[in-house]
Amino acid sequence: MANDQAEERGRSYRKAPERRAQILLRAIELFAEQGVGSSLRAIGAAIGVSHAALRYYFASRDELLVAVYREHEGMVHEPSDAADVSAVSVMEKSAERNRAIPGLVELYATLTTDALQEHHHPITRDFIQERFRRVRADLAERVRAGQRSGSIAADIDADDAAALVAAASDGLQLQWLLSPDDVDVHRSLAILERLLPPAGPALMR
Amino acid sequence: MANDQAEERGRSYRKAPERRAQILLRAIELFAEQGVGSSLRAIGAAIGVSHAALRYYFASRDELLVAVYREHEGMVHEPSDAADVSAVSVMEKSAERNRAIPGLVELYATLTTDALQEHHHPITRDFIQERFRRVRADLAERVRAGQRSGSIAADIDADDAAALVAAASDGLQLQWLLSPDDVDVHRSLAILERLLPPAGPALMR
Repeated sequence: MANDQAEERGRSYRKAPERRAQILLRAIELFAEQGVGSSLRAIGAAIGVSHAALRYYFASRDELLVAVYREHEGMVHEPSDAADVSAVSVMEKSAERNRAIPGLVELYATLTTDALQEHHHPITRDFIQERFRRVRADLAERVRAGQRSGSIAADIDADDAAALVAAASDGLQLQWLLSPDDVDVHRSLAILERLLPPAGPALMR
Repeated sequence: MANDQAEERGRSYRKAPERRAQILLRAIELFAEQGVGSSLRAIGAAIGVSHAALRYYFASRDELLVAVYREHEGMVHEPSDAADVSAVSVMEKSAERNRAIPGLVELYATLTTDALQEHHHPITRDFIQERFRRVRADLAERVRAGQRSGSIAADIDADDAAALVAAASDGLQLQWLLSPDDVDVHRSLAILERLLPPAGPALMR
């Protein structure tokens, strides 16, 4: 009996990562179809996983949401995003990747909205603040590379420009989801790229 | 008795707009302190208004949220925003006004996040879609005025630029709320204004 239990437990442990990944996949499908659930219990009920089982993997709704986002996000540049890719292009490519995952932008909007509530979603707030810092630092480095190469005006503050590019990309994806016929993320970001072209020996414009 | 009832009802009707305004004010205070409530019942409990009384004024949580936002929003330009004020400046002034109303940006983020859920928040979605259309149309007109006066490059599409300015302003306010020390809405928007200066006889740059 003790042996059986140990064996069962061993089997559960071996299966845990796979089961966790299944839960994350079903959660993002749910978010795309029905929106982000308001509690861990409600999310469990909707994806057919018991509250206890869900709690085994995720201590709270916020932990689950952050885990789902981490699993699927395309917002952080890929290793292939070389230094000579412009800040605007990096965000545009990530917007392109996001578009392929229904529910991801809704989840991202929920996480950033939750993060605004200082005392109610500490895990979400830490995650989103840290993510913005990382994204801005990467974009600012690309702006500085452009300035070193002479393609971007030297009097533009790279950190201010980085916040602008991240903001424009987030806001445009949201407007596009609401009115796909009226908004074109690519074309609007291309306007911003006039100011912030990629680094390179030649001026882009 | 019937007279009393009629009189009481008459008094209620006379008081209704005032009572409704009180509820809207207490709701936005609540949103600033504790976040946007998840149901009409929860919001009523938090602001000390019975569910029945709340239902007298607002048919649903979404109706209440939209009404609170309408009551307090500063996102739409003031009548004093003359045509020669740049698109970027209009959004910057509205960001400035928003900052004075704690809870408003949280409420706006909640409304736009809810609006992404096509089938679950129809009233919110209609309101937010219509608001974006109105804001973009106003901003596009300012870009066209800049192009007519020669201050903005003629080959920039005014509608694409309008979406860009609205997106940048929304996204920057959100990043600023999360990291006030790292993000400066004014400075980042000023970078965008290099491309999209106000209309005027003289070139701004």
